[in-house]
Amino acid sequence: MNFASDNWAGACEPVLEAMIAAARPAAVPAYGQDPLTARVEARLCEIFEREVAVILVTTGTAANALSVAALAPPWGAVVAHEEGHLAIDECGAPEFFAGTRTLRWPGVRGKLAADDVARRLAASPQGTHHGRLSVLSLTQPNEFGLVYTPAETAALAQAARAHGLAVHMDGARFGNALAHLGCTPAEATWRAGVDLLSFGGTKGGCPMAEAIVAFDPARRETLTYLRKRAGQLVSKHRFVAAQFDAWLAGDLWLDLAARANARAARLAAGFAASDRARLAWQPQANEVFAFLPVTTAAALQTAGAHFYDWSTAALAGDDLPRDGEALHRFVTSFATTDADVDALLAALAATPTA
Amino acid sequence: MNFASDNWAGACEPVLEAMIAAARPAAVPAYGQDPLTARVEARLCEIFEREVAVILVTTGTAANALSVAALAPPWGAVVAHEEGHLAIDECGAPEFFAGTRTLRWPGVRGKLAADDVARRLAASPQGTHHGRLSVLSLTQPNEFGLVYTPAETAALAQAARAHGLAVHMDGARFGNALAHLGCTPAEATWRAGVDLLSFGGTKGGCPMAEAIVAFDPARRETLTYLRKRAGQLVSKHRFVAAQFDAWLAGDLWLDLAARANARAARLAAGFAASDRARLAWQPQANEVFAFLPVTTAAALQTAGAHFYDWSTAALAGDDLPRDGEALHRFVTSFATTDADVDALLAALAATPTA
Amino acid sequence: MNFASDNWAGACEPVLEAMIAAARPAAVPAYGQDPLTARVEARLCEIFEREVAVILVTTGTAANALSVAALAPPWGAVVAHEEGHLAIDECGAPEFFAGTRTLRWPGVRGKLAADDVARRLAASPQGTHHGRLSVLSLTQPNEFGLVYTPAETAALAQAARAHGLAVHMDGARFGNALAHLGCTPAEATWRAGVDLLSFGGTKGGCPMAEAIVAFDPARRETLTYLRKRAGQLVSKHRFVAAQFDAWLAGDLWLDLAARANARAARLAAGFAASDRARLAWQPQANEVFAFLPVTTAAALQTAGAHFYDWSTAALAGDDLPRDGEALHRFVTSFATTDADVDALLAALAATPTA
Amino acid sequence: MNFASDNWAGACEPVLEAMIAAARPAAVPAYGQDPLTARVEARLCEIFEREVAVILVTTGTAANALSVAALAPPWGAVVAHEEGHLAIDECGAPEFFAGTRTLRWPGVRGKLAADDVARRLAASPQGTHHGRLSVLSLTQPNEFGLVYTPAETAALAQAARAHGLAVHMDGARFGNALAHLGCTPAEATWRAGVDLLSFGGTKGGCPMAEAIVAFDPARRETLTYLRKRAGQLVSKHRFVAAQFDAWLAGDLWLDLAARANARAARLAAGFAASDRARLAWQPQANEVFAFLPVTTAAALQTAGAHFYDWSTAALAGDDLPRDGEALHRFVTSFATTDADVDALLAALAATPTA
Repeated sequence: MNFASDNWAGACEPVLEAMIAAARPAAVPAYGQDPLTARVEARLCEIFEREVAVILVTTGTAANALSVAALAPPWGAVVAHEEGHLAIDECGAPEFFAGTRTLRWPGVRGKLAADDVARRLAASPQGTHHGRLSVLSLTQPNEFGLVYTPAETAALAQAARAHGLAVHMDGARFGNALAHLGCTPAEATWRAGVDLLSFGGTKGGCPMAEAIVAFDPARRETLTYLRKRAGQLVSKHRFVAAQFDAWLAGDLWLDLAARANARAARLAAGFAASDRARLAWQPQANEVFAFLPVTTAAALQTAGAHFYDWSTAALAGDDLPRDGEALHRFVTSFATTDADVDALLAALAATPTA
Repeated sequence: MNFASDNWAGACEPVLEAMIAAARPAAVPAYGQDPLTARVEARLCEIFEREVAVILVTTGTAANALSVAALAPPWGAVVAHEEGHLAIDECGAPEFFAGTRTLRWPGVRGKLAADDVARRLAASPQGTHHGRLSVLSLTQPNEFGLVYTPAETAALAQAARAHGLAVHMDGARFGNALAHLGCTPAEATWRAGVDLLSFGGTKGGCPMAEAIVAFDPARRETLTYLRKRAGQLVSKHRFVAAQFDAWLAGDLWLDLAARANARAARLAAGFAASDRARLAWQPQANEVFAFLPVTTAAALQTAGAHFYDWSTAALAGDDLPRDGEALHRFVTSFATTDADVDALLAALAATPTA
Repeated sequence: MNFASDNWAGACEPVLEAMIAAARPAAVPAYGQDPLTARVEARLCEIFEREVAVILVTTGTAANALSVAALAPPWGAVVAHEEGHLAIDECGAPEFFAGTRTLRWPGVRGKLAADDVARRLAASPQGTHHGRLSVLSLTQPNEFGLVYTPAETAALAQAARAHGLAVHMDGARFGNALAHLGCTPAEATWRAGVDLLSFGGTKGGCPMAEAIVAFDPARRETLTYLRKRAGQLVSKHRFVAAQFDAWLAGDLWLDLAARANARAARLAAGFAASDRARLAWQPQANEVFAFLPVTTAAALQTAGAHFYDWSTAALAGDDLPRDGEALHRFVTSFATTDADVDALLAALAATPTA
Repeated sequence: MNFASDNWAGACEPVLEAMIAAARPAAVPAYGQDPLTARVEARLCEIFEREVAVILVTTGTAANALSVAALAPPWGAVVAHEEGHLAIDECGAPEFFAGTRTLRWPGVRGKLAADDVARRLAASPQGTHHGRLSVLSLTQPNEFGLVYTPAETAALAQAARAHGLAVHMDGARFGNALAHLGCTPAEATWRAGVDLLSFGGTKGGCPMAEAIVAFDPARRETLTYLRKRAGQLVSKHRFVAAQFDAWLAGDLWLDLAARANARAARLAAGFAASDRARLAWQPQANEVFAFLPVTTAAALQTAGAHFYDWSTAALAGDDLPRDGEALHRFVTSFATTDADVDALLAALAATPTA
């Protein structure tokens, strides 16, 4: 019963088959000069309804850190939610790649709010001593599985731009956000003011494939050099491209994301109906948060369920656990089945009442 | 007719099958906490006949740059051959990862010589103004396809160690070197004084898999943090581990390397017997260097052969082309067949005489 | 009427005379190999009652950033108060020099509290993804002119050390803190668990002289290399050393600090007695904070007084301004006279009542 | 008898007096917002006959490293003479500040030649793998005391610019070069194609003052941020500005440089006339190179003379010492007197014949 993370999942069949197929041609040029790579970029232009520059890498950390390095001068700073992956889970990678500082700002349930960001930006001293605030990075969906609407993104981007900041979207689970929103990829990103998107393929069903999508193609040269210098230019590049090629074909990526989201909804309904758990809030993507008595959680884990205690200082009010409880995160993936969800709920029902 | 590079090749069947198989388990822990990763490390301990710490990454650039960062302080400098990959082909990655400088020293046919290195080290000012020379990096086989014997490596390592330098071996084609040497992996590395090995799987038949092998396991923590901070910790790590797992099983890696080397020898014999080319020197691994009249090379390329002009200022004397000639590099891979070699030689024979 | 900053002040006579005198010897070795430099280190060993290693630089930014770089690995993070100079006023210098991240933690009136720090450290995830928390940096006196007692420093250092963090003290105004505390330099620093001290001479009366004092002399080599690589090794080093030599002689530094502190106390008393200002809290060093009606502050500035609006989100409760007020900072220096203070108070008295 | 270096010298009277005078005003704004700083920039605009942006720092290492960082992207490389200060004496500072690589190219007696540079640039692979060659840095005068004429600088700059490189001039002893050339500062720099000049005041008679002069004032913002982030923004900035203010007044800097050059010429004449030394080449600035029998050099040093053995692999042919000899460097400064020179020559004459 894996609800630990979507990166505990394997990879989907069509992507694996594409990698096998990609191995077949005896020889193709290395370092991204191959036809598959060109096809992926063309497909992304189609998906985003505009010319984009695409840089493929193998980890989300690299996608995020390279994005920051492409958008900020070394004396810049990145604004992110205090719980943002980029802010706390990258072991200093953004600081390393870009030379910048990271500012961690609060926001209800992991979401930055445009008016609050605008107020903080206006109050932030900028200049020689403080450097420049250069990038606003939004996690979509965020660390609590919630999604920025295009209107929210646009309001945040407008506030950012008014103070000279560029906008980065960390879309490690971008597909899950989009499956929830039902809008077009363009509406969720560049039409709302996003400059660079970390478009994650790994959590969505690829073995290891992440794309940096630059909505201004003029950023290609900078990103190309930064990627190589960061050791992220895969020599047999066809094997990264093949993953995206299959995953983006026929909107497989959205189907897989919708499937994961549906499992999350099923799990949330189960929690809501249970007397052994309290659903923290309605999930919007593929992460479900629930308060469980500590003893219940332990019993579930003993029963073979994998999920994480998600205690955090970044929640308040009704979002805090009651006595004896802790907040827990359950992540579904493209590979999660209804049976998996039901097994977890059955195991939950079988735990002793607190 | 691909003789451009071994990274133009695809990937071998057993490795691809292992990736498919790795996808099967519904869920395994991410970030290298999976059983396959443990098995790869155990296998490398076996292969190197000692406890080693293993860090897997997806590019050779990352393997080299992380190795330097693990061995040198920020005020250190790396000594490499002036034609070394690390010295000229990494877009500044070693400087970026380690903060160090790179010194490019000469040597006949791409090989540093122990007595020359010792002399230069003794003459190199060290201290506050000049920093410390911290790492000697050897490319094995080197940029001209030649191989350091264990005795040569040991002599170089001894010279390095006498001046306080650690020893890194860039083994992007380590299998090809070993297939030539016929010695054990241990003899070619730590028994000869090597501290860290970049052990390349990609050129040898994997889609994207490189290992940093630390012969002092105490380096594990430093390398682990450096890897994450560099965006090189693949989340679905089983897919990198699976490649090495299959590639190292039953000495497949050595068989594949021997096959590539045999094709190179066949090609070299063909050049030696041809009146349209002059073999530059006997190949030791999977790279063949030959002088071809410029017109002959152009005709071959028109006929569909891929290979590179390898003009360089780092050769001298008999290693220089004669009038009208240029030096060219032909690389074979695990996927090169006798028929491929014979096709190239036939195409050569069909070029007009100069 | 300068109350803007102590770095708006000039320099004290004995220090200037020492620089003139230092110029006299026709030739002395460069880069710190001169007798004056040795004398300064010996004097600091005396002052701190133990062997220390001393590294002189010309700015406080450099002293702080080099200290962090000497104490933290590149994957480390620095914990500082959210208002700490190092956290917000160095344009990313610590991140640049050390490659680290900076965490900004809250605390009443600019002071971190040991129990809160202990609690936060215990709750901070550490490891591959989050890096290591490596350094606790305390500003002494802090940004609100308040001073850590040796007992407070010791409690903080103990909490830090229990979680593997080293302790840095940013003593840009260390003399002012000591003049307040009345304890020995040793008691305020290494006896309380401080590893590295940025010992500021500039704000205390030197033109440009800051010392990094390492209480473990084994840190000398690392700091020496880092300083040179950071472009902070002054070639005619005698001119930096001469400043410290004169400033430390006969406890001039403490006398000058006590003088500045006394002027601050006089000013605070004046504010307390005035009906046009509200003293925010009793000053402990040379910075006075007072709430002034915005119109009063403007009138004072029109009258020629220099001081800064110090609005901040880091204060709460009674420390917040009332309607129409703002918090303002007034800094005294070694050069501030009673007459200067009285002139400001007279100008204040002459402002129209709000 | 100091001929070790011009940074063993003290500082000239007018500069010291200016620092005293600068201390007088009770309070002036910090961080370069003071009138003296403005005056220095105005004076440099006058001297260079155009609008320039000026950034003052305290070391030549910082001036050079910041210049590189302002001119090169992180994936760039700097071309310098293999003996250039920036290439070998900065402990990796340029790599640290700019993230770049440094290429060390040869040239007769420390001078790069335009045709050779053009040839090498044309042969240098550039692109994703190799990065971009971004900056040509010329040391003026160079490490062997020789001076680029405006025509030579222009030819080099033209070659650089043709391949997309900017031009930096390391003028740690710029005054000495200009005193030799007799041309205007403009002719030696921007009119010849120089983009940024490290204009050294320290070796010329200041305690610690170096200027980065940007001939395109639009570089001011970048340099301002880079300087602060590098810990090089002196808070009591008037004390750096005062040095330049006095040193540039009435062309004192050129007079002092001419004086040092004249002493070098006197010393060279003495060597040329001696049977105990062989002048290596005619000096052009304030550094004299001579071959001395090793025993003679030792005897001179025993007699109290300070100078350095300057053995190097970068010289050839007639520039190499004969059996028993070594090359030595003798540096004069503004403070060197005729008597100092004559004392050295007398001591030389008193050594036993070899």
